[in-house]
Amino acid sequence: MSNINKKVHANFNAALFALCLERRGARPLHAQLTDGLRELLRAAPEAAGLRLPASRVLAEELSVSRMTVTTAYDQLVAEGYLVTRQGGGTYVAGELPHLAPPTPGPRKTPEPPRPWRPFQPGLPDQSLFPHRIWARHLDRAWRQPDPALLDRPDSFGWPALRAAIASHLSAWRGLDCTPDQVLITSGAGDGFDLIGRALLPHGASMAIEDPGWATLEHTLRGIGITPVALRVDGEGLDPARLPQDCAAVNVTPSRHYPTGVAMPLARRLALLDWAHRVSALIVEDDYDSEFRYQGQPLPALAGLDGLQRVIYMGSFSKLLSPALRIGYLVVPEALISKLRATLAVTGSRASLVPQPALAAFMASGEFATHLRRMRRTYARRQAHLLDALAPLSDCLDLAPDPSGMHLCIGLRPTLAARITDSEISRRAAEAGLTLRALSSHSVLPDPPQGLLFGYAGFDESQISAAAGDLCTLLAPLCAGRS
Amino acid sequence: MSNINKKVHANFNAALFALCLERRGARPLHAQLTDGLRELLRAAPEAAGLRLPASRVLAEELSVSRMTVTTAYDQLVAEGYLVTRQGGGTYVAGELPHLAPPTPGPRKTPEPPRPWRPFQPGLPDQSLFPHRIWARHLDRAWRQPDPALLDRPDSFGWPALRAAIASHLSAWRGLDCTPDQVLITSGAGDGFDLIGRALLPHGASMAIEDPGWATLEHTLRGIGITPVALRVDGEGLDPARLPQDCAAVNVTPSRHYPTGVAMPLARRLALLDWAHRVSALIVEDDYDSEFRYQGQPLPALAGLDGLQRVIYMGSFSKLLSPALRIGYLVVPEALISKLRATLAVTGSRASLVPQPALAAFMASGEFATHLRRMRRTYARRQAHLLDALAPLSDCLDLAPDPSGMHLCIGLRPTLAARITDSEISRRAAEAGLTLRALSSHSVLPDPPQGLLFGYAGFDESQISAAAGDLCTLLAPLCAGRS
Repeated sequence: MSNINKKVHANFNAALFALCLERRGARPLHAQLTDGLRELLRAAPEAAGLRLPASRVLAEELSVSRMTVTTAYDQLVAEGYLVTRQGGGTYVAGELPHLAPPTPGPRKTPEPPRPWRPFQPGLPDQSLFPHRIWARHLDRAWRQPDPALLDRPDSFGWPALRAAIASHLSAWRGLDCTPDQVLITSGAGDGFDLIGRALLPHGASMAIEDPGWATLEHTLRGIGITPVALRVDGEGLDPARLPQDCAAVNVTPSRHYPTGVAMPLARRLALLDWAHRVSALIVEDDYDSEFRYQGQPLPALAGLDGLQRVIYMGSFSKLLSPALRIGYLVVPEALISKLRATLAVTGSRASLVPQPALAAFMASGEFATHLRRMRRTYARRQAHLLDALAPLSDCLDLAPDPSGMHLCIGLRPTLAARITDSEISRRAAEAGLTLRALSSHSVLPDPPQGLLFGYAGFDESQISAAAGDLCTLLAPLCAGRS
Repeated sequence: MSNINKKVHANFNAALFALCLERRGARPLHAQLTDGLRELLRAAPEAAGLRLPASRVLAEELSVSRMTVTTAYDQLVAEGYLVTRQGGGTYVAGELPHLAPPTPGPRKTPEPPRPWRPFQPGLPDQSLFPHRIWARHLDRAWRQPDPALLDRPDSFGWPALRAAIASHLSAWRGLDCTPDQVLITSGAGDGFDLIGRALLPHGASMAIEDPGWATLEHTLRGIGITPVALRVDGEGLDPARLPQDCAAVNVTPSRHYPTGVAMPLARRLALLDWAHRVSALIVEDDYDSEFRYQGQPLPALAGLDGLQRVIYMGSFSKLLSPALRIGYLVVPEALISKLRATLAVTGSRASLVPQPALAAFMASGEFATHLRRMRRTYARRQAHLLDALAPLSDCLDLAPDPSGMHLCIGLRPTLAARITDSEISRRAAEAGLTLRALSSHSVLPDPPQGLLFGYAGFDESQISAAAGDLCTLLAPLCAGRS
């Protein structure tokens, strides 16, 4: 051993023998020794190849049991810091690295999530959600769980929830299906992912509504589906304009998102006819139809089709709470096996935790009660919003809508001549309001202009205050001053 | 009006006036009338264009209020079955379709999910999960929810859970990170999706281990990432064989899946060196390292790197329950903003429902207690499995593993000469056993042969019985008879 090596050896052993172990600490001695020795090794790359003291020697030096030392040595051998050699002896591993201790970069305090601001659309009022009842269902479902909840999960979701959804759809949406056709997802994005992966060839085209759900374009491109945007008119998407080579089309026929127009029967039939003719899939996104204030909700397109070429897509995010992250697909019988094959590989993305509780909440009738209550509340809030915006009736195209959770309101010519919806949205954001521009839901040129007023998630006083702020903002533009 | 039309008209009106409404029924009269009239319209395509009786007339005929009739008419106008014309009057919409009533196809009874069978790998024993404690946490979290739970959700997940995970990783995995770096997912598939979408260019290559997690190849291709399989050896993936043009590599350094080998320090350092040199990402999948029976778990690779180029991926599926569908990523500071930008579009896929309960379960120390208890249990079960398989020691390469939830056991030459692992797996399935073949985890040619024995999810008596069945199956092959 050279003199330099001797010195390294002596220094290293001195440091090792000086290790300070906390005998009355909560951490076991062998763990303290492991940590201490690992730190020494990290700090001393020059110790590579050194032979460590025999466990008996180190045990004596540190006044610990030999077992404490051998446990620490074994651990560090497993971690690769030490090696054992044939013939005995424990050595510091060669090529000991310049191991920087973990140094997290400059700490960036994350921006605290901003609370929801009026007029955020699509937001239910969660303060009216029956939390005590919900918590009781969660507790009951999991305190002594149904053994099937711990068994191999059905990739389509918890059967009782699927049965409850089938009953709900029959009563509320005129859609008759079996529980076998219901597939629980973690929301619309998950639903589209699954449809794309299981049912559409890579690179296939899907026609989408323009304006429409802004996220959809991104979601589709992410799974290799090419979105083909089609401008909607006052009756929604026009089936006559559908390209023959689209493998699928996404529509919101009951209430077009975001304009709120309903697709009339003639177009629905033409759409079904197109899908049968070119063997395409229709994905019907039915996001808030339960909240129809006059008459019954329009029956789902999927029901008209007898679930042959239509996949129906629903969600509890808007009906109950976005926190659930529970949505569902209702799929034609013929597609079940393909979807099951894909799910057998990828697994379900939907948490099982809320599913039995949600099933009980629906089966007990509490869900329907809650929906009816919310429907009355949201109808009042829409009326309140229209009253509160009345001072702007010269520049906004105020009109009630018999359903939904938001109003899509057009700009009257006087206002539209002076400012774009995006600019109003930007100024409203500065004033603390979320007022989405209709044009931001388009990818095609010359998008229609309008503003989205979500009212469901805000009580009358919030709506009044926010409408007042908006009046202050827009009044000068309406009155002719710029 | 032609005679034919007159006849159609008369017939239609007769059917309409004969509609039977249930006055003491639970369903409101207007809803009953709507349904009845809709059915009539569907059944009578020849009625297209007919003028309906005035609401006053129909009200008298049916002995209901005029409001009942106008409500029903309005509803069917909204649905497109009826139209109103200028000058008054309500007409059956033109081109009334051949509307088939929903007729679900031949009912296919779904296969009931089969229960888990030994030796399913990666399955925790959920019967030992503290369900009462868990249900109490769920109840507490949601009975009077923290207002922030109802507020705009942080796309990275519930902050208290992220903090609890950061503490857990520091104590159990030698990984120091801030809660800001923790991102809650709905599991590994969701995590890979997010990494692919947010951090890798479309068409990028990711090196993966072969054998490895069989689902990964499919998941990556689904998001446009090209998997590049690299055969592992007795020390895991060899960084020297990594192509320079890979944008990322996925590894299981603490315990290679499924063979169980640990990557030694030298390779870990070479892997980090490669990633820094070619600016690649390392995705460290650390799926069951908490279950190390001797010494401490090997520290995470991400800790060695100070979270610069490594994304650490963890999950509660194997530690607690697959029902949770909660996993997480720990990401370098520099990548947070990109991930947030992607999540702002796609939204989180992880349910919020379990998150506050899981945070409380972890913060209370009950999680660590549960892990330690499971670790003892699984160690016993592994020893029991090895004992139970002892009669097969001539044909299986039985050896204990200091960690994990399954053993990957090689075939001895005598057995391997007679049968493949896939064929054993097939025969075992017929005998009611899930015994995965190691070769089924490979995409490269000439895969290694072996069998995966998951023991964590099964108690000693199940293990004994299953091992007995396997001995019966394999003994003839071991004894020299074929």
